[in-house]
Amino acid sequence: MIRFNSDYTEGAHPQILKRLTETNMEQTAGYGEDEYCKLAADKIRELCKAEDAYIQFLVGGTQTNTTVIASALRPYQGVISADTGHINVHETGAVEATGHKVIALPSADGKLTAEQIDAYITGHYKDEAHEHIVQPGMVYISNPTEYGTIYKKHELEAISKVCKKHQVYLFLDGARLGYGLACRENDLDLPHLAKYCDVFYIGGTKVGALFGEAVVITNDVLKKDFRYNIKQRGGMLAKGRLLGIQFLTLFEDNLYFQISAHAAMLADRLRERLEEFGVKFKIDSPTNQIFPILSDKVLEELGKEYAYSYDCRIDKEHSAVRFCVSWATKEESVEALLVRVEELLNSGLVG
Amino acid sequence: MIRFNSDYTEGAHPQILKRLTETNMEQTAGYGEDEYCKLAADKIRELCKAEDAYIQFLVGGTQTNTTVIASALRPYQGVISADTGHINVHETGAVEATGHKVIALPSADGKLTAEQIDAYITGHYKDEAHEHIVQPGMVYISNPTEYGTIYKKHELEAISKVCKKHQVYLFLDGARLGYGLACRENDLDLPHLAKYCDVFYIGGTKVGALFGEAVVITNDVLKKDFRYNIKQRGGMLAKGRLLGIQFLTLFEDNLYFQISAHAAMLADRLRERLEEFGVKFKIDSPTNQIFPILSDKVLEELGKEYAYSYDCRIDKEHSAVRFCVSWATKEESVEALLVRVEELLNSGLVG
Amino acid sequence: MIRFNSDYTEGAHPQILKRLTETNMEQTAGYGEDEYCKLAADKIRELCKAEDAYIQFLVGGTQTNTTVIASALRPYQGVISADTGHINVHETGAVEATGHKVIALPSADGKLTAEQIDAYITGHYKDEAHEHIVQPGMVYISNPTEYGTIYKKHELEAISKVCKKHQVYLFLDGARLGYGLACRENDLDLPHLAKYCDVFYIGGTKVGALFGEAVVITNDVLKKDFRYNIKQRGGMLAKGRLLGIQFLTLFEDNLYFQISAHAAMLADRLRERLEEFGVKFKIDSPTNQIFPILSDKVLEELGKEYAYSYDCRIDKEHSAVRFCVSWATKEESVEALLVRVEELLNSGLVG
Amino acid sequence: MIRFNSDYTEGAHPQILKRLTETNMEQTAGYGEDEYCKLAADKIRELCKAEDAYIQFLVGGTQTNTTVIASALRPYQGVISADTGHINVHETGAVEATGHKVIALPSADGKLTAEQIDAYITGHYKDEAHEHIVQPGMVYISNPTEYGTIYKKHELEAISKVCKKHQVYLFLDGARLGYGLACRENDLDLPHLAKYCDVFYIGGTKVGALFGEAVVITNDVLKKDFRYNIKQRGGMLAKGRLLGIQFLTLFEDNLYFQISAHAAMLADRLRERLEEFGVKFKIDSPTNQIFPILSDKVLEELGKEYAYSYDCRIDKEHSAVRFCVSWATKEESVEALLVRVEELLNSGLVG
Repeated sequence: MIRFNSDYTEGAHPQILKRLTETNMEQTAGYGEDEYCKLAADKIRELCKAEDAYIQFLVGGTQTNTTVIASALRPYQGVISADTGHINVHETGAVEATGHKVIALPSADGKLTAEQIDAYITGHYKDEAHEHIVQPGMVYISNPTEYGTIYKKHELEAISKVCKKHQVYLFLDGARLGYGLACRENDLDLPHLAKYCDVFYIGGTKVGALFGEAVVITNDVLKKDFRYNIKQRGGMLAKGRLLGIQFLTLFEDNLYFQISAHAAMLADRLRERLEEFGVKFKIDSPTNQIFPILSDKVLEELGKEYAYSYDCRIDKEHSAVRFCVSWATKEESVEALLVRVEELLNSGLVG
Repeated sequence: MIRFNSDYTEGAHPQILKRLTETNMEQTAGYGEDEYCKLAADKIRELCKAEDAYIQFLVGGTQTNTTVIASALRPYQGVISADTGHINVHETGAVEATGHKVIALPSADGKLTAEQIDAYITGHYKDEAHEHIVQPGMVYISNPTEYGTIYKKHELEAISKVCKKHQVYLFLDGARLGYGLACRENDLDLPHLAKYCDVFYIGGTKVGALFGEAVVITNDVLKKDFRYNIKQRGGMLAKGRLLGIQFLTLFEDNLYFQISAHAAMLADRLRERLEEFGVKFKIDSPTNQIFPILSDKVLEELGKEYAYSYDCRIDKEHSAVRFCVSWATKEESVEALLVRVEELLNSGLVG
Repeated sequence: MIRFNSDYTEGAHPQILKRLTETNMEQTAGYGEDEYCKLAADKIRELCKAEDAYIQFLVGGTQTNTTVIASALRPYQGVISADTGHINVHETGAVEATGHKVIALPSADGKLTAEQIDAYITGHYKDEAHEHIVQPGMVYISNPTEYGTIYKKHELEAISKVCKKHQVYLFLDGARLGYGLACRENDLDLPHLAKYCDVFYIGGTKVGALFGEAVVITNDVLKKDFRYNIKQRGGMLAKGRLLGIQFLTLFEDNLYFQISAHAAMLADRLRERLEEFGVKFKIDSPTNQIFPILSDKVLEELGKEYAYSYDCRIDKEHSAVRFCVSWATKEESVEALLVRVEELLNSGLVG
Repeated sequence: MIRFNSDYTEGAHPQILKRLTETNMEQTAGYGEDEYCKLAADKIRELCKAEDAYIQFLVGGTQTNTTVIASALRPYQGVISADTGHINVHETGAVEATGHKVIALPSADGKLTAEQIDAYITGHYKDEAHEHIVQPGMVYISNPTEYGTIYKKHELEAISKVCKKHQVYLFLDGARLGYGLACRENDLDLPHLAKYCDVFYIGGTKVGALFGEAVVITNDVLKKDFRYNIKQRGGMLAKGRLLGIQFLTLFEDNLYFQISAHAAMLADRLRERLEEFGVKFKIDSPTNQIFPILSDKVLEELGKEYAYSYDCRIDKEHSAVRFCVSWATKEESVEALLVRVEELLNSGLVG
């Protein structure tokens, strides 16, 4: 079985394990107050061209989303998200468990638009009964989104403007950020994110690390006492240096960007070859997740050797599924998958 | 600087890093549903002689405490804890953040007694206004406690009985469990814990792992949907196999017990030698944390080379501090510390 | 200004004030443990033909919804509601503030169907990743709904069946229950509600009382410790007898049903006459709230003398608004409103 | 049975019921946005000599305490209270249910001192691990306290100073405020409270109203969006005018102070006469709650005709109990009680 069902099926980039092994018996301070965390934070600040940014390292995505959102909102405020957003559909109500509504706005491609955010917030305050309605306090976006789509620079800038206008925070979930920055259509970089967002994070779990998300806070209000929030939400790793060492390894020599580019290259190949086979896609995603539509019979056969994740039914005989590639995906795995898909498509199984 | 200030100053036992490296590029299912987690769970069930126990692996202690407690209580219930309990004093209100009061009972040595629990719960229901008071729903104890003391078998059995009588759950925090089981005074083992507790955990973070706590649930009510709780509280590690591999390594050949014994031996040596020097202790703790009382002048000098953690002031010129040893502590480090303490004590610095 | 903007613009039915005055200097036990609460509960049990029902009296609707829902759910569970449901849109996230997601299903008329509930819950458990998704634990419906529509007996029975099949609770918000039971299309009565729902409430605030909602719990699991929940959520009125006296007055001689019938009669008149004027409605609501579509110019004029509540824009020049009648509405007020609407419609203002 | 067990055994002052009856069929806006609420707020602002104070009316004490505290704190903050404080012991964990720890400081008489608050907060920030400990964000005091004691002006001023120094809010629970202001030892008035507190409330439920607490917010930060918090916590009364009318009646002609003085007079008489009988008190309380120590045999007999509330056991044969008088207590009831106590004391029942 070769797995394309998620982008965290392997461990970590070998350099990370090597570094963890080399530093293993060193004694350090705990809870992220060690030298490695400091060095990693310095490096990320430098790459973001944001010398005042406050950097903290957390273990996983749900924990990071929840901690950031709960730390920013007042009790009666909610967070605006695409209805497809990870916090709205795949975190078992973690945000609600901290007392906050996820205000879900409709989205076909996983993205929110500046116009739709503006219209929603404007409408909120126009409503005479607005005190009876959850007040929008933050906008949550993912880049890439859960559907693999990305924000262009002008889109992010416009959203940022709307957020500032209405005094709501902008938070960008970068669990797959590397794959977004590495894709051909992208025109964003870390300094843009630091400029436009009040807080965002650089995902490690899906991009080369054993685990870990680097939170970058640029808004001073959100920096204050943030570590209290981390501790309270169970996210303060005792051996915090494990996070520092991993992010230092990923960023000191651009490893993060190199391994992201590898995934981008394989995703392009997979997408292009499937298109050549005549396969249609549920969504036009330029990053490491692709969503082909295949017949249920092809999928059944394919599933015996290749793991994918089921997305949704398209019609009686077809479904959309998701294939993920990652820093760890081997070229030969992608080739083998393509060979098998082609065979199945040509076998008359369809319908 | 040699660190005795906590029991998580190093990485992991080398066998763990070796195993993580060997398995690194294997592809597995995520979220703890891989083969390594299954094998580790099987092994722990076997060691607990509890074939129906439900085992889940979480990353850290605060997260585990919060997830277990919040999963067990009804909204109007609280958890009884020693006032010195970790959940009451050192988790930034994580339990309260899930909506539950920590009902703190006084404790001089970090332990609760069956009598005091019984009296409290009996008193609760005797109060005519008990509906206006948080209802006790669970008892939380740590073994070893935050003061390094341990429960004897008859004490745990008595507490278990009281909990069953009043239909409240018994939860044992075993963040330092290895060091408790390894100490000379101990008469408990894993099957006892599985028998007397509704849920407990075996700490990895402080005993050889990079991170990780193995939760053992024996009460059927608490098993149901426990993984929903883990996900909601941000504790479901994407690459869950990292936990499975670590606990498998710790338990398949008794490594956990061996490295705990190493710490127990060093703790005994440290304690006995300090006693020989005439040092008094704040508390008589038989495990890997010891709490000597030293003069502030000695402490100031000592602190230049050896890290300890400050506990409390004893009188104008003396304080109690905490020294921790662990699986990773070197004999020569303990020796060096003892030499230095003896020097300082003999130097006329006292007072 | 004559107000039709809500159904709580006046105080209470005069018999209630009279009764409160007569009993004013009596001394009673507090917190709803007085004789009046007992008598009122007995009466309601009798009317519901549910001798084991557990009755508690709360002050207002949001408080009641929140208390009931939070008392029933496990932390990782959510409550299914029509997207138009009061808990989803008009309670400032009170349910989320207790940690639970409102799972909003689409509804055009304010109602949920048994089929749509069944499909949602079935889909939840079919999803491989269901542990990452909030688990449905309760279904919340309102009768009448926020759009004035009502459930027929067969619909409620079907929903009840689906809830039992999936082991989720059924909770009916009866803030306007009197107006539902009194309307011509209704075929439900209190014993039906007690039979089909695990918990429901009979609204007093909008139907003759100064304030108050009578919660009727038929499911034994939900009865246990319910008063702890009331106290914790701030809903336990010190002088609880105020609720007992009001509900006793409303139910001992059928006053509740008589005053509801008055409102039903006026609502019918208003609806029929507007239809005669050629007015269209946003929704076909048979109860005390009606939603006519009028031109913005007519509305502007009308609003100078008659208060209504704005519902939504229909097209560039027309909006839907809401008129409420209640137990307190005078016939002459409805007549005056109708005369004025007719004048305005005939004045050539439209468009 | 004559009840002295609480200060809310009757309805409301007759003038309030009269006023509610007179205004009953007036139509007003809902949710506290009516003219009566405005007038009552104006009157209270005038009495407080605080023209910028923001006034809102809530229904009950627990709800008010919870709403104010949850609206003020950040998620990782707790509220400092005397361990005897109402929020710590008699609200079923309502504050914790909003996610916040009650930081309980020891108190023998129900009061906190400026010194003890200062020491606690100073200690918090001195602790190296303070990020692991709930951060104090507010101080909660009651005046009178749950033991009937009161703060003198210099004490309140000192506490206010400490709170400002550490930038924590000062919140005063005035559920029994009238009885505090009316007692002989008192040297505080409403303008002092408005000056020294960031937020406080004037209790109506226990002082003449059917229900209701008037929240006075003087700190601008706490004013913002406070009504969202009220709605979210279930405290926004639909017919808000009921609160406005009650507080207007209580304050427009000093009724609140007159009826409080009546209770103060009766409390003094009860206290003095019991002292003459040789009765000792658990605590020296100058307000409407008194805590005599009586033999269990006397209490048993007394309890057949006079309701009191049990406080605590003093020794094998004696207990402290609480007698409350209020605006509604009749002189003859107090006389009858005293006669009966004297009889019992002289009957040889003691011991």
